[in-house]
Amino acid sequence: MAASLFESQLYSGAFHTAEVGRLFSDSAEVRAMLLVEGALAKAQGALGIIPEDSAAAIQRAVMEVAIDPGALRAETASNGVPVPALVSAFRQEMNAPEHAQYVHWGATSQDIMDTALMLRLRQVLSHVEKKLLEILKHLEKLATDHADLPMAARSFGLHAAPTSFGAVVASWGTPLLNLLNELADLRSSSLLVSLSGSVGTGNSFGTEAADLRAEFAKGLALTDPGCSWHTDRTPILKLLDWLHRGTLALGKIGQDCLGMTQSGIQEIKIHAHGASSTLPHKQNPVSPAILVALARHSSTLLAGLQTGALHQFQRDPAAWFLEWLTLPQVALTAANACETALKIGENIVPSQDNMRAHIEGQSDLIHAEALVFLLAETLTRPEAQARVKQMCSEAVASASSLQIVAQTHFPELDLSKAFDPRLNLGQAPQDARHFAQRIQDLATEHPQPTTR
Amino acid sequence: MAASLFESQLYSGAFHTAEVGRLFSDSAEVRAMLLVEGALAKAQGALGIIPEDSAAAIQRAVMEVAIDPGALRAETASNGVPVPALVSAFRQEMNAPEHAQYVHWGATSQDIMDTALMLRLRQVLSHVEKKLLEILKHLEKLATDHADLPMAARSFGLHAAPTSFGAVVASWGTPLLNLLNELADLRSSSLLVSLSGSVGTGNSFGTEAADLRAEFAKGLALTDPGCSWHTDRTPILKLLDWLHRGTLALGKIGQDCLGMTQSGIQEIKIHAHGASSTLPHKQNPVSPAILVALARHSSTLLAGLQTGALHQFQRDPAAWFLEWLTLPQVALTAANACETALKIGENIVPSQDNMRAHIEGQSDLIHAEALVFLLAETLTRPEAQARVKQMCSEAVASASSLQIVAQTHFPELDLSKAFDPRLNLGQAPQDARHFAQRIQDLATEHPQPTTR
Amino acid sequence: MAASLFESQLYSGAFHTAEVGRLFSDSAEVRAMLLVEGALAKAQGALGIIPEDSAAAIQRAVMEVAIDPGALRAETASNGVPVPALVSAFRQEMNAPEHAQYVHWGATSQDIMDTALMLRLRQVLSHVEKKLLEILKHLEKLATDHADLPMAARSFGLHAAPTSFGAVVASWGTPLLNLLNELADLRSSSLLVSLSGSVGTGNSFGTEAADLRAEFAKGLALTDPGCSWHTDRTPILKLLDWLHRGTLALGKIGQDCLGMTQSGIQEIKIHAHGASSTLPHKQNPVSPAILVALARHSSTLLAGLQTGALHQFQRDPAAWFLEWLTLPQVALTAANACETALKIGENIVPSQDNMRAHIEGQSDLIHAEALVFLLAETLTRPEAQARVKQMCSEAVASASSLQIVAQTHFPELDLSKAFDPRLNLGQAPQDARHFAQRIQDLATEHPQPTTR
Amino acid sequence: MAASLFESQLYSGAFHTAEVGRLFSDSAEVRAMLLVEGALAKAQGALGIIPEDSAAAIQRAVMEVAIDPGALRAETASNGVPVPALVSAFRQEMNAPEHAQYVHWGATSQDIMDTALMLRLRQVLSHVEKKLLEILKHLEKLATDHADLPMAARSFGLHAAPTSFGAVVASWGTPLLNLLNELADLRSSSLLVSLSGSVGTGNSFGTEAADLRAEFAKGLALTDPGCSWHTDRTPILKLLDWLHRGTLALGKIGQDCLGMTQSGIQEIKIHAHGASSTLPHKQNPVSPAILVALARHSSTLLAGLQTGALHQFQRDPAAWFLEWLTLPQVALTAANACETALKIGENIVPSQDNMRAHIEGQSDLIHAEALVFLLAETLTRPEAQARVKQMCSEAVASASSLQIVAQTHFPELDLSKAFDPRLNLGQAPQDARHFAQRIQDLATEHPQPTTR
Repeated sequence: MAASLFESQLYSGAFHTAEVGRLFSDSAEVRAMLLVEGALAKAQGALGIIPEDSAAAIQRAVMEVAIDPGALRAETASNGVPVPALVSAFRQEMNAPEHAQYVHWGATSQDIMDTALMLRLRQVLSHVEKKLLEILKHLEKLATDHADLPMAARSFGLHAAPTSFGAVVASWGTPLLNLLNELADLRSSSLLVSLSGSVGTGNSFGTEAADLRAEFAKGLALTDPGCSWHTDRTPILKLLDWLHRGTLALGKIGQDCLGMTQSGIQEIKIHAHGASSTLPHKQNPVSPAILVALARHSSTLLAGLQTGALHQFQRDPAAWFLEWLTLPQVALTAANACETALKIGENIVPSQDNMRAHIEGQSDLIHAEALVFLLAETLTRPEAQARVKQMCSEAVASASSLQIVAQTHFPELDLSKAFDPRLNLGQAPQDARHFAQRIQDLATEHPQPTTR
Repeated sequence: MAASLFESQLYSGAFHTAEVGRLFSDSAEVRAMLLVEGALAKAQGALGIIPEDSAAAIQRAVMEVAIDPGALRAETASNGVPVPALVSAFRQEMNAPEHAQYVHWGATSQDIMDTALMLRLRQVLSHVEKKLLEILKHLEKLATDHADLPMAARSFGLHAAPTSFGAVVASWGTPLLNLLNELADLRSSSLLVSLSGSVGTGNSFGTEAADLRAEFAKGLALTDPGCSWHTDRTPILKLLDWLHRGTLALGKIGQDCLGMTQSGIQEIKIHAHGASSTLPHKQNPVSPAILVALARHSSTLLAGLQTGALHQFQRDPAAWFLEWLTLPQVALTAANACETALKIGENIVPSQDNMRAHIEGQSDLIHAEALVFLLAETLTRPEAQARVKQMCSEAVASASSLQIVAQTHFPELDLSKAFDPRLNLGQAPQDARHFAQRIQDLATEHPQPTTR
Repeated sequence: MAASLFESQLYSGAFHTAEVGRLFSDSAEVRAMLLVEGALAKAQGALGIIPEDSAAAIQRAVMEVAIDPGALRAETASNGVPVPALVSAFRQEMNAPEHAQYVHWGATSQDIMDTALMLRLRQVLSHVEKKLLEILKHLEKLATDHADLPMAARSFGLHAAPTSFGAVVASWGTPLLNLLNELADLRSSSLLVSLSGSVGTGNSFGTEAADLRAEFAKGLALTDPGCSWHTDRTPILKLLDWLHRGTLALGKIGQDCLGMTQSGIQEIKIHAHGASSTLPHKQNPVSPAILVALARHSSTLLAGLQTGALHQFQRDPAAWFLEWLTLPQVALTAANACETALKIGENIVPSQDNMRAHIEGQSDLIHAEALVFLLAETLTRPEAQARVKQMCSEAVASASSLQIVAQTHFPELDLSKAFDPRLNLGQAPQDARHFAQRIQDLATEHPQPTTR
Repeated sequence: MAASLFESQLYSGAFHTAEVGRLFSDSAEVRAMLLVEGALAKAQGALGIIPEDSAAAIQRAVMEVAIDPGALRAETASNGVPVPALVSAFRQEMNAPEHAQYVHWGATSQDIMDTALMLRLRQVLSHVEKKLLEILKHLEKLATDHADLPMAARSFGLHAAPTSFGAVVASWGTPLLNLLNELADLRSSSLLVSLSGSVGTGNSFGTEAADLRAEFAKGLALTDPGCSWHTDRTPILKLLDWLHRGTLALGKIGQDCLGMTQSGIQEIKIHAHGASSTLPHKQNPVSPAILVALARHSSTLLAGLQTGALHQFQRDPAAWFLEWLTLPQVALTAANACETALKIGENIVPSQDNMRAHIEGQSDLIHAEALVFLLAETLTRPEAQARVKQMCSEAVASASSLQIVAQTHFPELDLSKAFDPRLNLGQAPQDARHFAQRIQDLATEHPQPTTR
């Protein structure tokens, strides 16, 4: 067991996080904080808060200077936050004290760190958006191809009534699609700059505090929050909740695939699956299990993030540190869930024979509900229900099929309609096709993921 | 310690939930489920799925019939869900089998229960909205009255720089205000009917399944989801997350009030506070402590709700039961937080003398940042910072004030501006007034809470 | 959905908590607190801290006086804790001010409430112990009867190798048995009195504080902690963790039963199962689903209890209130899990035909591991593993049985041993019998549950 | 914000985990798994299950062979578990197929991984034990030196009555001491080998399965569990709960120190504290804030671990993966808490002047309880309580001291005893000294930490 599966050489094949891992590296963090300092200087230069040539010099330097995160370690340990060490190292690297003095002018550590985090969360959103679109393309094809393929729907684990595999796939993809539709609002409401100084009043920015924040936001293409959010973590909660709900929706795919690959059920195959160290015949559904673990992990982490969102006074380090301990894990979990779901999307194949076998023969109790509604054309509904219940027992007791038993009871009626799953799929085929259409429309509207 | 503080005779004074408690009573649940069955029959009558006179009879009966929840207990225990027992008791009470057979036609338990839950969550939202508005009215007055009242802002628990009490109050109220602004979208996106039959395909509704769901939604003034959400708990998560974020934002008020009532700090008084069983002199800040406990409780409960949102197959009872165990507690917690915050809003008074004492005299280190920016008009910023740091040490060592020490070092400069808190409040007064204005605008737009 | 399923008329059949529900009623709490006040007076009388006749009068009164919890509501709301109201009501009821003044002498609310909680937790432990013993008796019979009944063991949901149903039952019961074995230590280490006065120093008890606490503990048959534990919630955490681990172990029974009742698997039947509101043929595994929901619920609640165990200073109301909100729910969850598991224990029957079918015929890949070890008598292990893997593929591709394929490849070897599940059960039968024996021994040692 | 603060170059100064970080590295894991394979071969050689010279060859090779974790990544990704890739790489590296075939004979991946984890958790326990002892040595000195130093105890954040700083320190250390006393039992009950083969029956080990497990346990100096614990995670839960309770107890130190360093309270100083990026005068209590964040983080993680302890069937990968995602973080959190608490222990100094100031002068309301008990020598207790309450109000209203007010009301009584904090410390000094003595006894019994 490694400290973090996402960063382990051994485990990060299964627990792969693609670019999101890099976004939470030390160097990405240092880079993002420097970009923020540069954008701050630029905005302050434009408003005349600091000299324009100093602003320009700072802007240039943040692009050129390389700062070794390890060199900031000791000072960060003593301060709790890395910004003082970073600012001081950056000033030294600039080698131009007359300009360097204007770095970080009037800002507080949290302004820099929160804004730098937003730059990285923006990239996380774009990455996850792109991956969700790829997953949805696979689901679209599955839903289209199998819109009419009957399979047993389960309630309490038991065969309940027929649905179609395409509809099941649509039920996996719909929450993902809805998440994508939330993205534009989420970005504009929650990808914010932070700029309100040591205690949220922006005192050191003088009367231009509001203009400066707006200019700063414009420079970074983030939203101006209009006030301080040092202790109101709503934007963080909303962004991470979106990622979490992605992980959760992908977890549903994992849960269903775990269920559908079970011996005795085997309604799907996922190619390229795992070997056992001692069992030569097994192809383990590794990816689905990972998705389920990630969804549960994310639910737990979210509680930590929520607990960390309760601040005291104007800066609450215990709450803030708890956010640091938790937030990146929620994002990495979402990224890993995307990679894992993609593997499933690329490799999943329905086992039509097994699906058919489950809704035929002795297992035809699954058609009991349809039979009730058919008989309710002649009998009252409660009567029909009671009769079918009794015939079900009879079928089970005699190890016979419900259709045969029912036909004996109602020889005059044509009951075949109730026993043909294709005639009892309800909205399932339409749901599958409607879902597929929505993805095609999405792809038309957004020919490629936004890169913002 | 009672099973549920919210329902205990002993504790429900402190842990009061007002109307929300009633919404989660057995009789409210039975009532809501009957209303849903009535609305379903009405919609089915209108579309000709069931006979119109049966629909009318069912509609009438759901208003008239009274069903004792206790009488449904045994059958509910065996089924896990109360709907079969309810439908059967209701049919019997109707005493008109020819109509009664059309009750619950083609629906599944989850359709009824989820829709009935939505009816009650709609009322919860309205209740909490009303209470948040009341709380905000108190905060508006505080923010207006004390927009310019200087007090010490704290970072890491330490005096950092001045802010105003009005700005602190604004920081409490802003997240609540933002929550109210989310409500319209939340209602239309997430207060949904559920109607998709035993396995989500609406098979028993025939080709009119979609029309029926739309009609049903119209009848209950809820939104038509356009598909089944039996296993996609997003609407539940969004509604409860909104309530939770309310509890969390009220928790911040509690945290700050706990901090500000501490002996040695005493920046506020909350009248009508609690007695100790053995300490005659204490007035305990009971309400703030409750708010903090509720915010932490809600964060934990939310993790349960998230875990319960991960379903397998078309109906997952373990996940669903977990939702039942958790969801009402999140709502009751939010309701209790509102009641508790109202008590604070009504009784809180700033102790201006103590606030002033904290930013004057020996404690004037709080003006160090302002002094740096003042000196930075003459020195470079890093130089100014270094000089002030050294003067702070000097002041502490000599138990003198920073102002006196600084004036000795810079006899030629007028440093008094840096030491007048009223001149160093930055945006605090505007933030307080802007917040108050937003509430007044809100009250103008919404002269009274929506009753939807 | 009711506020608390455990207390709802509608739901408390399924979510039944037996006597534990009563232990967390208002009246049980008031009673327990009065008993504690009585025991305190008795001990103080014995040591001469208060007059002996006052002690006797108080002792008598706590047995006789009835106090209405509702009458304490308003004062409890203002104080946060019920003890001041209770003491004052009790003094009035005593109607003997000369004695009544010695009630609650030198104690603090938390002393009374924590000790009263311990009295009730002691009963909770005894109740759960008794129920676990009943559950274990059912499991003992199942393990004995089916020690040799082969069934397919699953890894990743897939058939892995044979085990026996008795061994599976033993794996359910072993953690429960181990919990019972922890009980004696748990009781003596964690069922404590609390008696250390307003700030944990016992100042009002004078020099006899330690003797008094010992005498008080003796009177209540609880353990003397030797110091104050107002802010060290270890005893609470240990007691509730024990209950939680019971719920978790019962959750495993639920998980397995949910898996084993699935259509396509059906290895067990649980009689007396639930009906669906629309599906006439289904017998829903309600009890297993409840067990799983409870185990997940308990895991979440435990996080709340842990968060509430982090106190600040000498009394931290926010932490303590969080404990109140959470603790009873953990206990009720455990009690409900016991009731639910009992229903399963009483009604579970293995479906031997289905179990056999799963490890015979085409599904005989489950014997692949045994075949490897058989072939490894002739080939090297890696060679044997590679050959078996290849033969498995061949069997799957040709829809033939592994045994037939293997025999074709190795006509000279007798392979039948590898394909007889009864010869490949390893320790399973012994494990089952050993488990059953342990329960019989337990019953012999403890002919009836302790009533402490 | 880095993926994991514990492994970040930037943050791991503050979030330092010392040796525990190395124990959860890939190379430590590979090494531990190889040691386990070696011990398995040795035990199997001794019992004649595999040839003795092969056992010897394997034993030698596990000490000599170096395996690059990165080389196992791809195969681990496809299998979910690293053992098949490791066994295969190890066999190849051995370069002696006749012996190599006996590697991993009859074991399953989980046997190897769980046992390897136990080897590392054993080291984690020893590391944390050593650190706790170091922390306790600091606390012992503080408790001894300040056993009689009066300070204000707080309830609800308010001054309640006097205690001593030494007693507060004892309240911090006592839970840690108790944890150390649990260690011997914990080690013998929970540091287990796992050896039960693919489905927990040990089938491939033949009739000697039990002897083999015992021999294997002896070889590794771990405990023989007597049965399979693949799906009963009790040992894991107990070990991690112990670590968690350590983190929680250290979190209390953090909470109190955060409270005691606040401006307006300042009862302690912690030297070498952090700088602010913009506030020159602040020395932030970084370490206490980290301790609080860690305690809350650990509570959340524990919920994940509990959720991951609920398994289905004989191997539940989703549950197991969740354990992998969570467990190391709980251990690293505990290790970081130890490092952080040590920094506090080394640098904390009480501010006696401030402590004294809080319990003198106008703030002398803290002596109200003592005054009640003094007056109760003359008046009845309720009367005394009422009189003192009224005098408290009078003192507050007149901004006078309670002592002066009281003396006016009771001129004939000598009230000075009630107002001398040194006379009202109750058991506090003894508690402090008793705690210090317990540590000295511990150090005598265990002159150095066990190295097991």
